Amino acid sequence: MSFPKEIHITEVGPRDGLQNQPMSVPTQRKIDWINALSATGLSTIETTAFVSPKWVPQLADSKEVYTGISKTDGVRYSALVPNEFGWRSALEVGVDEIAVITAASETFSEKNTNTTIEGSLLRIAPIIQSAIEHGIQVRCYLSCVVACPYEGSIDMNVVRNIAERILDFGASAIDLGETIGVALPEDIRRLYDALDGVLSPEESILHLHNTNGKALLCIEEALHCGVVKFDASCGGLGGCPYAPGAAGNVATEDVVAFAHERGIETGIDFQKLVDASSMIESELQCVLPSNAYRTFKDAHTFPNE
Amino acid sequence: MSFPKEIHITEVGPRDGLQNQPMSVPTQRKIDWINALSATGLSTIETTAFVSPKWVPQLADSKEVYTGISKTDGVRYSALVPNEFGWRSALEVGVDEIAVITAASETFSEKNTNTTIEGSLLRIAPIIQSAIEHGIQVRCYLSCVVACPYEGSIDMNVVRNIAERILDFGASAIDLGETIGVALPEDIRRLYDALDGVLSPEESILHLHNTNGKALLCIEEALHCGVVKFDASCGGLGGCPYAPGAAGNVATEDVVAFAHERGIETGIDFQKLVDASSMIESELQCVLPSNAYRTFKDAHTFPNE
Repeated sequence: MSFPKEIHITEVGPRDGLQNQPMSVPTQRKIDWINALSATGLSTIETTAFVSPKWVPQLADSKEVYTGISKTDGVRYSALVPNEFGWRSALEVGVDEIAVITAASETFSEKNTNTTIEGSLLRIAPIIQSAIEHGIQVRCYLSCVVACPYEGSIDMNVVRNIAERILDFGASAIDLGETIGVALPEDIRRLYDALDGVLSPEESILHLHNTNGKALLCIEEALHCGVVKFDASCGGLGGCPYAPGAAGNVATEDVVAFAHERGIETGIDFQKLVDASSMIESELQCVLPSNAYRTFKDAHTFPNE
Repeated sequence: MSFPKEIHITEVGPRDGLQNQPMSVPTQRKIDWINALSATGLSTIETTAFVSPKWVPQLADSKEVYTGISKTDGVRYSALVPNEFGWRSALEVGVDEIAVITAASETFSEKNTNTTIEGSLLRIAPIIQSAIEHGIQVRCYLSCVVACPYEGSIDMNVVRNIAERILDFGASAIDLGETIGVALPEDIRRLYDALDGVLSPEESILHLHNTNGKALLCIEEALHCGVVKFDASCGGLGGCPYAPGAAGNVATEDVVAFAHERGIETGIDFQKLVDASSMIESELQCVLPSNAYRTFKDAHTFPNE
């Protein structure tokens, strides 16, 4: 079995990570942090979400954050938009890419987006259309591709059908969310088998949570399947308010260290990444869970380099 | 590829975990913790080490701890003995099993046991002989089976030769230590290939550290190789004072959750294990790194059950 030469990581910490923190981070600290992430070599950063401050007060300053960051050439700055209102805000500030959301579970869809799966598809279709007209890339999150925190196992034919619909709408990319982090490697294999002919592994993005420490195990299998794009959050920041028991995203440091050990390029400077994580860790006064981050930070040496 | 029906975990937290903590835990708290671990269903617990308090002050109360615990039927209470002096102390308190130590790296051997590999073998041979005469089981740690923090990659022929010597001495079991947690799955496969004809996977014990979050990836490969015995420490407590950059042992919770998801029996009650980890976490006022522990503790629900 062989591995790809390089992989691409979308840093989702500023959005997926921060929205799950009990406290809000001051706007300027977010901007400084995103600027630090921009210097690491990451090619895409999900900066914020244009959501109602009523639902996600942690991201109430999305416009200030997006307009405050110093955009670096070669980095794509994305933002999540849950609805038409968010899309208009995103358009106003000139985002490079938007992320829209749907799910493969009815219950999760209701809890996360307050509508049915069909309702969420009808909501995102015109946004995607409008984004295309404005020349803006669209990534579409498809949550619960393996399991739902409320419904348990998900029928992967449902995942396949929704993926087909999303691609018909014209989305640039589908981001497959293993929202609760229960997948075993064979589930990842089943997922891509189910998507065969609709979405190739190379074109997909895989979004994993490290709930019980199995994210790298799933990434190894995904690499074998041909996946080359992954979401991750620096330090492993995150969780999901609508997925009880789900831990943070797989840590960017863990994915980068793992890839580099395998000789797979990421374009990311590990030291700079750790520095960026360290900034947000100090700000949140938390203990970031990433193993590779902790090891590097605690030992001031990187055992694998 | 198939998996075994059951695996056996040796809990090494009270020894490997505590010896790496900056602070000492009061004797009675250690005893309470080990008693809590005894109630989880674990079959073997490494309780302490009979070492010089000069080198490991955290375990200076080894005799008091060992004689203070309430032994439960069906649980084997082990203790590490680095030398003849430690062995005599262990014998005095009536240990069920001793663990002796050697390594596959000259430099690590010097740093960890203050002698050459040959010196360490000459040191443990008479201890093993004496233990056999007293009807006491002997597990022999063989450290640095994949890599050494000072020498880098280890020649697995050296591992094979030392394993052969240890078995000739009459040790009941060899505990293969991937001391610094850099192994990729293919290294685990290479290790067991190198040991072919000397030590079968089924008879070995595998001791992993989760430095960069790859321990479960290595355990998956080890299961495929036929390994059924693993060391782990509850909550992921640990590290190694002589292995800069090495994180704690793979967490007992992570291994147990992973095994149970696979339908592999461990005999361990997950809730009781979390309760035991919680005791030591409160005592040390630290944040235990285990993903499965954190998830369960933070969510008060176990998403995979």
